[in-house]
Amino acid sequence: MAQLLSSSSSLTIFSRNKPYLKPFNQCSMSFSTSAACNNSTYPFRKLFLQRQKPRKSLVLQVSAVSTSIETPVQTSSGEPSKPQRVMVIGGDGYCGWATALHLSKKGYEVAIVDNLIRRLFDHQLGLDSLTPISSIQNRIHCWKSLTGKSIELYIGDICDFEFLTETFKSFEPDAVVHFGEQRSAPYSMIDRPRAVFTQQNNVIGTLNVLFAIKEFREQCHLVKLGTMGEYGTPNIDIEEGYITITHNGRTDTLPYPKQASSFYHLSKVHDSHNIAFTCKAWGIRATDLNQGVVYGVRTDETAMHEELCNRFDYDGIFGTALNRFCVQAAVGHPLTVYGKGGQTRGYLDIRDTVQCVELAIANPANPGEFRVFNQFTEQFSVNQLAALVTKAGGKLGLNVETITVPNPRVEAEEHYYNAKHTKLVELGLKPHLLSDSLLDSLLNFAIQYKDRVDRKQIMPSVSWRKIGVKPKTVTA
Amino acid sequence: MAQLLSSSSSLTIFSRNKPYLKPFNQCSMSFSTSAACNNSTYPFRKLFLQRQKPRKSLVLQVSAVSTSIETPVQTSSGEPSKPQRVMVIGGDGYCGWATALHLSKKGYEVAIVDNLIRRLFDHQLGLDSLTPISSIQNRIHCWKSLTGKSIELYIGDICDFEFLTETFKSFEPDAVVHFGEQRSAPYSMIDRPRAVFTQQNNVIGTLNVLFAIKEFREQCHLVKLGTMGEYGTPNIDIEEGYITITHNGRTDTLPYPKQASSFYHLSKVHDSHNIAFTCKAWGIRATDLNQGVVYGVRTDETAMHEELCNRFDYDGIFGTALNRFCVQAAVGHPLTVYGKGGQTRGYLDIRDTVQCVELAIANPANPGEFRVFNQFTEQFSVNQLAALVTKAGGKLGLNVETITVPNPRVEAEEHYYNAKHTKLVELGLKPHLLSDSLLDSLLNFAIQYKDRVDRKQIMPSVSWRKIGVKPKTVTA
Repeated sequence: MAQLLSSSSSLTIFSRNKPYLKPFNQCSMSFSTSAACNNSTYPFRKLFLQRQKPRKSLVLQVSAVSTSIETPVQTSSGEPSKPQRVMVIGGDGYCGWATALHLSKKGYEVAIVDNLIRRLFDHQLGLDSLTPISSIQNRIHCWKSLTGKSIELYIGDICDFEFLTETFKSFEPDAVVHFGEQRSAPYSMIDRPRAVFTQQNNVIGTLNVLFAIKEFREQCHLVKLGTMGEYGTPNIDIEEGYITITHNGRTDTLPYPKQASSFYHLSKVHDSHNIAFTCKAWGIRATDLNQGVVYGVRTDETAMHEELCNRFDYDGIFGTALNRFCVQAAVGHPLTVYGKGGQTRGYLDIRDTVQCVELAIANPANPGEFRVFNQFTEQFSVNQLAALVTKAGGKLGLNVETITVPNPRVEAEEHYYNAKHTKLVELGLKPHLLSDSLLDSLLNFAIQYKDRVDRKQIMPSVSWRKIGVKPKTVTA
Repeated sequence: MAQLLSSSSSLTIFSRNKPYLKPFNQCSMSFSTSAACNNSTYPFRKLFLQRQKPRKSLVLQVSAVSTSIETPVQTSSGEPSKPQRVMVIGGDGYCGWATALHLSKKGYEVAIVDNLIRRLFDHQLGLDSLTPISSIQNRIHCWKSLTGKSIELYIGDICDFEFLTETFKSFEPDAVVHFGEQRSAPYSMIDRPRAVFTQQNNVIGTLNVLFAIKEFREQCHLVKLGTMGEYGTPNIDIEEGYITITHNGRTDTLPYPKQASSFYHLSKVHDSHNIAFTCKAWGIRATDLNQGVVYGVRTDETAMHEELCNRFDYDGIFGTALNRFCVQAAVGHPLTVYGKGGQTRGYLDIRDTVQCVELAIANPANPGEFRVFNQFTEQFSVNQLAALVTKAGGKLGLNVETITVPNPRVEAEEHYYNAKHTKLVELGLKPHLLSDSLLDSLLNFAIQYKDRVDRKQIMPSVSWRKIGVKPKTVTA
């Protein structure tokens, strides 16, 4: 089934009636050319393999003639339009995969661009998703077999501009959803090399996307994943991107001040400033989605088949508060509250992540507009989350305890927090608020997979203050 | 005299009674081991050359026993202290060289860290300083011969952390003055590779400096050169780094909003955010000097000998408004006002640059403090500068004309501008305001060197809107 390609191999894949010749020189990888789901009923075009002189990156296009078109996408004016072509950078990740499927289901033509480095991080750090996840190739084949919908796949690094150029010329996106960044604050605080990697990878990757849009698709709408963490925890209300300030008798509306608290969060601040500049200087149309903490695992699309199952991180590096608490409760590990637990943030269900991204695409920013949405639905403190999980666990017969661990981060543990989040609601977002039933479902999900939990990975292992200059090695 | 080293050569230089063994593997370079000034009266230690296995970078230490100590540095409390050790990163550049000499003269122990890439930019773009400038090695030898004062020299790239580590371990700085960045807005807008280079070089270099301070010299005070361009041109008064905002009945003092207008200016915004975070997370002590546009060429120290002469840029890439206008007036080229000429900025004399840096060092930030000073002394619009140069030129018999050229930048050409700049004055800055005599002096200086002017380099050649993705080649 799976065929291993050496680094001197390359692929020629014929699809959409034109040949694509895209080789690679990166690490070896496996993929399958057969249907990934047993219930496949759709024909696949034959994929031809051919050896070529090695070049820079792999572009694997898994495509076929669509057998059906979903409901046409509605614009904000209510008029149907032809399916938009959406490139999802980072489409193999937690939010990216769910978004790619959702958009495909909704009738968009979707391409995933990903270098799969998130999977490499797991290997290097000895981590794994709670849920078993299929290869991106099998995922896409499964989706095709279930729905008849094709998702194109370009495997490579957007920091490699030659590769990114090929993806733009080949796919010709109308919108780019950019999840393709190192997205963990603790990862960025492991050691100096990973801090530098995070900023270099994220900032330069985004710069390249901006240049690609300017050069090849100037009307393309950039939907960029930012983070609520860009704002920090100011002692005044957080607005959506901008704040009107009256000072010494004069007034202006200016970018909301940024106070990020990790090299990761800072990389998003840098991105936001860079994007804002290119909107003004080049007329780029961009939406910055300052997303809160995402919880949950299932979306309508990922729930269709186990091959489509999303990743679910519970470890101290990539796991986020609510998801990690559910796993801790499931395996009888005390919930780990960092410090006083008064840290308050915005949260949202992953089903709302995919809904928000679609709303942003369907209602694009104007040329030259740098639009900022705060993408979350509710605020919780860490203590509030722990209490909710304790209560929900009790209903399922779990004895959930909570412990306080020294806060590995540098952050306020008691603070004012009130962030606006109305713009996406105004565009039509119907929030999935955190409910007892969702918590039950998440806990049951964690219980289902509890044999896969590596308890060694639960406690925080990265200290904001103790970060050193040398590469930190992780051993079994 | 000059000896060319191949990339397989390395140096062992004995000085300060201990051997320094620092080889390099970078491009070949020349340097002289002989006294650079004819009036040398101070003995030099013999420099021994020895072949070693090549390693990463060159550290050339030009040092000897000081024959005199200047007036001890005064702290803000007025008490004398032992000479501080100040590392000047980018000490071969326009501001860096003047600052290194000034600090050395004032009794600080100074080391210059520089990869000399500013000189490479000139070669690659076919540009040259109006003034002939000596090699950094000859400059330092000349300084030694004139004053008896040693300046240590470390040649290498601060983006190479191994190199930076060596400089910190060897020199053990009490303060680091960081000029070591690509500092031209037009350079950063030439093409995609140079935009990416600017942000990568500046952001990663500064990250490395922060990590080096944390790891090796945690009490070291970082004096970082920022730019007034970080603020953009808001319609309210610009404060020094922070602004107190009352919003919906609550009040907080937050970082002043940033609206930079080139990839270069943006890189400084990114630096500021990164530094602020490390002050908070690690207790770094830092001063961000948001400098205005610097004019002038002579300082007391660079005027001591022609080998110490500072560079003077008048070209469309590295030249700044007032300096360029003086050269244009001297050679009979019309003054080139970009657009409407209402662009207003803060300006300062280079003699105040060196004074400000010294004040910042002598009065360091507290541990954990991220202090921001706006470093300029007067505001001018471009039209005001053109009028001043026209008037001063007339007195010297020059017929100075002004033309309007299409603005290659994206910026407001008529706007409110009122930026505070009191903190350095409170520390003791005695400004050299722009005077008729200074303008006369600058114009005479330009006239003295007018045969060296390459008129092809005067007009703007870089467009903010037309920047492309491919490397832009420059030919003669």
